[in-house]
Formats: sequence, C-alpha cells, structure tokens
Amino acid sequence: MSGIAMPEPDAEAIAKRDWLIDALRGIVPGEGVISTPEELRAYECDALSTYRQVPMAVVLPETVEQVSKVLALCDRERIKVVPRGAGTSLSGGALPVTDGIVLGMGKFNRILDIDWANRCVVTQPGVTNLGITRAVEHEGFYYAPDPSSQIACTIGGNIGENSGGVHCLKYGLTTNNVLGLEMVLTNGDVIRLGGRHLDAEGYDLLGLMTGSEGLLGVVTEVTVRILQKPETLRAVLMGFPSVEAGGDCVATIIARGIIPGGLEMMDHPAINAAEDFCNAGYPRDAQALLICELDGPQAEVDHLIDTVTDIARDLGATYLKVSQSEEERLGFWAGRKNAFPAVGRISPDYICMDGTIPRSELAHVLRRMQQMSAKYGLRVANVFHAGDGNLHPLILFDANKPGELDNAEAFGADILKLCVEVGGVLTGEHGVGIEKRDLMPEMFTEDDLNQQARVKCAFDPTQILNPGKMFPKLHRCAELGRMHVHKGQMPFPELERF
Amino acid sequence: MSGIAMPEPDAEAIAKRDWLIDALRGIVPGEGVISTPEELRAYECDALSTYRQVPMAVVLPETVEQVSKVLALCDRERIKVVPRGAGTSLSGGALPVTDGIVLGMGKFNRILDIDWANRCVVTQPGVTNLGITRAVEHEGFYYAPDPSSQIACTIGGNIGENSGGVHCLKYGLTTNNVLGLEMVLTNGDVIRLGGRHLDAEGYDLLGLMTGSEGLLGVVTEVTVRILQKPETLRAVLMGFPSVEAGGDCVATIIARGIIPGGLEMMDHPAINAAEDFCNAGYPRDAQALLICELDGPQAEVDHLIDTVTDIARDLGATYLKVSQSEEERLGFWAGRKNAFPAVGRISPDYICMDGTIPRSELAHVLRRMQQMSAKYGLRVANVFHAGDGNLHPLILFDANKPGELDNAEAFGADILKLCVEVGGVLTGEHGVGIEKRDLMPEMFTEDDLNQQARVKCAFDPTQILNPGKMFPKLHRCAELGRMHVHKGQMPFPELERF
Repeated sequence: MSGIAMPEPDAEAIAKRDWLIDALRGIVPGEGVISTPEELRAYECDALSTYRQVPMAVVLPETVEQVSKVLALCDRERIKVVPRGAGTSLSGGALPVTDGIVLGMGKFNRILDIDWANRCVVTQPGVTNLGITRAVEHEGFYYAPDPSSQIACTIGGNIGENSGGVHCLKYGLTTNNVLGLEMVLTNGDVIRLGGRHLDAEGYDLLGLMTGSEGLLGVVTEVTVRILQKPETLRAVLMGFPSVEAGGDCVATIIARGIIPGGLEMMDHPAINAAEDFCNAGYPRDAQALLICELDGPQAEVDHLIDTVTDIARDLGATYLKVSQSEEERLGFWAGRKNAFPAVGRISPDYICMDGTIPRSELAHVLRRMQQMSAKYGLRVANVFHAGDGNLHPLILFDANKPGELDNAEAFGADILKLCVEVGGVLTGEHGVGIEKRDLMPEMFTEDDLNQQARVKCAFDPTQILNPGKMFPKLHRCAELGRMHVHKGQMPFPELERF
Repeated sequence: MSGIAMPEPDAEAIAKRDWLIDALRGIVPGEGVISTPEELRAYECDALSTYRQVPMAVVLPETVEQVSKVLALCDRERIKVVPRGAGTSLSGGALPVTDGIVLGMGKFNRILDIDWANRCVVTQPGVTNLGITRAVEHEGFYYAPDPSSQIACTIGGNIGENSGGVHCLKYGLTTNNVLGLEMVLTNGDVIRLGGRHLDAEGYDLLGLMTGSEGLLGVVTEVTVRILQKPETLRAVLMGFPSVEAGGDCVATIIARGIIPGGLEMMDHPAINAAEDFCNAGYPRDAQALLICELDGPQAEVDHLIDTVTDIARDLGATYLKVSQSEEERLGFWAGRKNAFPAVGRISPDYICMDGTIPRSELAHVLRRMQQMSAKYGLRVANVFHAGDGNLHPLILFDANKPGELDNAEAFGADILKLCVEVGGVLTGEHGVGIEKRDLMPEMFTEDDLNQQARVKCAFDPTQILNPGKMFPKLHRCAELGRMHVHKGQMPFPELERF
C-alpha cells in the first residue's frame, strides 16, 4: 500500500455525513441510499482496481427528478459527486472520493423505445451496451460500438468514455453513434441535446458531452442509432515474419480504400499467450498476426477477401487463412477476444495501456517499446486496434515484488509519452480518468488546459462532478455565482433589410 | 427596403472608428485594413443577400499573430468581430454589424502539408473546399464533404457551418471529416484541438467548434482527413408516380443496409425546372425523382445497382435508368446540381430553406408543404438530400410585389416549425445565422438555451464574436473578468493506492 493515508474523520465530518445521508434519503427513499461500510466496499473501485477509495455514501436514484434533486442538493452543499455506470472503467473514471458520494445509475435500466422507422433506440443510461443489441437483433439490427466489456458496461458509461471496440474502424466510436441525450446539470436543470436525427442547430453539446468522463453532467436518457447486420461476415488470419511487414499490410489495406469491419494486430508474445489459452489456431512463429474482418453484401466481401489476401501475399505473409464458416470466423476471434485473460495466465499481474498513434508509426513504436521492455526488465505483449492506430500494450509484472508496480507504471507512462511524441494521443477508448491525468500536460499547453477548464466551469461552476479525474489541477471558477446567465436581456437591434 | 434605419454616426463614433482603424493598421500593415465606404460595400452581405449592413472596417490578417492581436484588441475595446471566409453563407452567418469589424480570413490560403501516410491534409482556413480535393486528386484522393458552393466556400467557413453536401449520407458532415484545428480565442490565446488522429483526450472542443458559426473563436489551421476515390461510381435515376412511393424507396434502400454515396430526391416542380434548364433526361411526368449513386469496388457496385433497381421496381417505379458511362452519370447529376439556377429561371426570386426531418416523415411533410403553398399563394419546389432527411424547399416569390418577401419568409418559418413538430431540426447544413435565430426557441427550452449561452461565455466572455447570430437574445456574462481561470491552484490530494 502506498500513498498518503487519509486522516480519520472528525466529529464534524461525521455529523455532516449523517446529515447528508438523511437529506439523500429524503430524495431517494428505501434501499436507494447505501451508507454502511460493508456495502460501500462494493463501490470502492472500478476496473482500475489498483486505486481504491470508499465514498461517504452511494445513491441509486430511479427517476430524473431524483437525479435533479440530488445534484441540486450536492451543488448547494458543495458535496462531490462521482457518477457511475457499471464500474468497468479501465482508467479509474468511476473511482470514488472519500469526501463525496457515488451517483449510481444502475436503476435506469429500461429501453424506452425502439424506433425502427428512424433506426434508433431510446434507452436509459444503465442499460448495458450488449443489452441494446439484444433488444434489436431479432429484427436483424445491432448497436455498433463493441468494447470488450460490452456484456457489463453501460451505455451511459460508454458516453462518458467515448468507448470504442473492434468495429470502430468502420462504424465509429460512441460519439459517431449517439444521436441524442437528456442530461441533468449540476444546478438541477434538465436539458436535451440532439434527437432522432443527424446534426442539430446550436453548439454541439452532444459531441462535447461524449467522452467528458462524467465531469459535465449526468446523462439520464440516450438515443443511439442502430445498424442492419451485414449480410456476410468473413475474416482472414495473416501471419508475418516481422511487425514491420504486418504494419505495412495494415497501411496498404487502408491505402487501397478498404475499410474492414475489424483490423486487429497481435505481436509474438500476445499470439503465444492466446494460443496457449484457447488454441485459436494462430501461427506461433509469426512476429505479427493480423485479423481482418470484412462485412457487407456477399459479392463485395468475396471481392475484398481476394484483394486483402493478395496484399498480404505480396508483403510476404507466412500464414494465410480465410474463414470458410461462421464457426471458423468466431474461432479466429476467440484468441483475440481472450487475449487479456490469456496474458493474465502467463503473469501474476498486468496493466493494460491505451494510446493512439498515427498508423504510419506502428513499427517504429513497437521497436521503441521493445527497448523500453529491456530497460525496465518487464515483458510487454501487444494487442492493437491496428486499423485506427489504437494500441493496447499489456505490461506484465508481479505486484508482490517490491517496486514492480511502480516500475510498470513508469513503463506505461513512457509508452504514452512516446505516443504523444510521434503525433498520437494519450488514449484511444479508455479515457484519461485517474490513470493518465498527470500526463495531460504532455499533450496540452497551459492555454489549452485553461480553455478546457473554462468549459468545465460553464457546466459545473461549483466543480462537484467527478473531481480529480482527467485534469491534473483543480481550477476554481472564481466568483461563480456571477456566471449565471441573466434572462430576457437586450433583443438585438432590428436589421436593415433590402 | 424595410427595417429600422441606423442613426447617423456622431462625432464620437467617427473618432472611435478612426482610432480603431489606426490601431488595426498598427497590427496589419499595408492593404490589410479596408476602410473606405466603396471598398466596404463588397463585404456588406453574404449569400443571404436580403440582409445587408456595412461594417466599420474589414481587416485581412496574414499571420496567426496578427489574428491574435486583432482579437485581443477588440476584446479589450469591446469591438464586435464578424469572422468571414468566402461569404457564401446562406443563413447570413457572415453578415457584418455596423458597429463592428469583419475579420476576413481570405489570405490564409495555403495548404501547409499533405500527409499521405496518415491520409490527411493540414491547411489554412481560407483554402476552398474544392481546393483541398484539387491538391490531392493526382494521387487518387479527395475531401468528402461537398457543399454546392464548394468551388468558392472555404474550409474555415465549412467548419463554422458544419457544411454538408450530396455525399454526407455516406461520408459524414464536416464534423466527421475534421481531425484537428488551431484556433485563436478572443483573449488572444492560440490553442490546438485534435490532430492527425481520431479522437483525443479532454473535452471534445473540436466537435464543439465545428458548427459554432463563428461565435467561439477564429480558426487559423485545419487538419482534415482525405479519402481514396472509389474504384467505381454508378448512378440510378428512378421516377415514381407519387412522393409517397419515392419516400418508400428511400426508406427501403436504407432499411436493406445500403448506404449510397448519394441519395437525392426532387419533386415535380423541381424536376421540370431542371429539365427546362439543362435537358438532363428526367421524366417530366414523375411526381418524385430519385438519384441514387453507388460507389466502391466494381463487384459491390454492380451487386448494389441490381438490389436498388429491384427495390424501385417492386415499389412501382415508372422510370428507371442506370448510368452506363461516366459521362452519363455526370449527366444524371447535371439537373440536380443546376436545380437552384433552374428554379431561378422560373421565378424572379426564391429563398432556399434548410431543415431536417426523420426520414419516415418525408411524404407527410411534403403533403403539408403543398397545403401551405396554397395558403400563402406561393409556389414551392423541393430538392432533398433524401437519404438523411435534409430538405431544401425553394419558395418562389417576386420581391417587386409588395408583401411577397414577408409572405415567403412566413411560409419558410412555417416549414421549419413543421420540421421541428415532426421530430426534426431547423437546419441540416446551412446553419442558423440571422435567418433562423428567432426560431431557436421552437427547438430549445430556456434551460437548453441558457446552457448554450454559458458555453459561449466560456469562450467569448465579452461577447464580441459574431453577435446577433444563432441566438435570439444576447446574454451578458456578468462580471466577466472573474471567469478567468486561476493558475497553479491546488493539486489534488494524493490517492490511496493498493
């Protein structure tokens, strides 16, 4: 255990906490407020479980009105609020604060409307990502973004983190698939952004909210677009003798104007860990494995499969296999989808990093990572969303060996700095959260960060929402009350019209 | 001429103007500041030429530093600033104000870098939309959004209005094709948003800026993605005996999971106006004409052409023609692309409206528009981006007949209110500007508009940028100086880590 221990709460803090729990119970009756230490433990961390903090209370509202009242109460009393979906964040986005509450949105778990004519679903934010697909698949539809945690993670959390997945190369991240939101501001106002259509007038607050990591407001309703399932899906496995050749193949496929449904890459350690785990049929001697999935009408898919295999052959692929059945296609994916548990078997612990680089830098970054691996004395296995340059290096370590966690974290930070150095960014789909907030100045100038802070102040002037996440410094929105927008002022002068 | 005439400037105003022009000349030397009445006339309006106002001065900076100094000066002196690209806005987005300056970005006209490996172009904002395609087409690439004004309109203006075009159904609006921006804030700070990659950490200010109609900052550099030209392009012309059948065909094509490169619809008056104008070979007796373009590998296009023609036949198409050559394909488009000048020939004046509706409401909205046409005694011709529900009704009138312009504007407002009533929005791609600002409360609640105003205050606390556009009321960001974000405050307490 490291870090500075929190001071024991004093009598005043205890009294304030008791008062707060009573006030919350006045808004959300019954089982909706959790306050015993045993029950609170369940909320002490998210999927970045190296960080844990027990909140003062957890509140589980069931209605928009309750969310509005809870936020207005906390805003007035300056109580910190950490919104939470299913707690699957890999960057600590839902890590509680000890002097605040967790606002769990799990009871907002109903799908409200399936609008077939406009190809969209209106849902509450606590519905899981996969739950949306489950609700529409009987008519041949699905919701495209597919994070690995899709069975558990909620659509509200997906909006917070702008979640991605294997299919984002072709079908976009969450931000490309969300059409509308209802959200509650910290002052209790309920506003609507977007709707059952593309684009809208006014500033694009819908885009701004997506990926804002719970710092700007609490989402209470989501409208997403759904897509028709492709007529045909086929995958190709391609093994290469070097990561450079694999990287070239990725670049060439994209350069030919082909946008595969998925284009994933694994390096030698990841291939072998996956193969040990589930016998997916991967070539153990390959230095790089690509899985390329093509979807669409049968004629198109057959044509593209030929093009992709030709490209791979020209670039010296040493292994090439095209799926001949749906079963075989799923088999190809089994290794990739189990890569994380597979790596978990060959190492006591690992951390999963998340950075994005220009596609052209793939081979260079992999080489540099090998050098870092030697320097830190820690193994690294790589699994990529290669098509869009999103890296997921898994750094292997043993938490029981003194200093190895610190070492692994330093290695991880070096990888992310390298991503920025080659023109990439600190995250692809896991968010900044706690994990990467101290690296933000690597990416942004002080002027950039100040403008981000001003936007935060425009939504949350008392800074109660998810404090400590994403940004390394807390800014006071000085004289906040004055930011209030006055109503009914000054219509513009009449225009001269010809 | 209507509206309230502006008062003659008094001696104090003249002195202030002279002082301002001197100050601007201190920043932008030589020909960069325009101040004579004759030269200023050239800037009195944009493409919504029913509104005209002569600004105090026009400044044409050539460097980011000059833009920064001009904005900081105007911020300090509370001088209003209207940013301008090529002045092609159809919603009055670049209409000057009489007590402010125009900041013309026309001299930012260089392409800075073509990054083939990462498939993007870094350009100054004054380069035209088509200029980007021209710079990359020799290698088989293009920039996808294609507003009708693409030969003249600038990429900076496209970002202001989130411009679309025929190909946006498949390839997205400007917001889906912009990867990064450099912009200047009103305080003179220069910040960078995004980069040569998809997604980034922090709030999505890139998305927020796109479509913000020049109210949040001045863009000085743009990075856009470029796409490989499709291998094959073919178009189908389909005539239907009713708009309902045409609407059904659009819905069915989309429902089958086909996303055409373009899917346009014209009604009977538009078909005949276009045919009179350029003999495109359109069926004059059809009540609805669809142009459906398919692009991609040849095998895919051939397959999809068969599917689309089968759908049209099943739905009772009375006319069906597939392009057999590139020349014929361009011929199909000639009528659509000339629809506006064609309508200009059959009426002394027209206004082009821009609204978006859920695709399922197409036939209903067309019927209601016919009833309105009878009520107002004005003809209407319809040209749609049918695939994404974006309407462009052209209302025909004669400005020389007293009251007809007012009548046409009232008709237009009724159409936009109808768009909102059926679940759509006030604009698809032309922006709100002056034209639609007074309709914003049809779309947004006061809470919604207040939140938009707070975001404006986070960027432009003195409200100097493009005042009077997009929002019907001017809000004061009270005690603005206090919104400044203080530096270097309060690092977060150390976390407990396990």
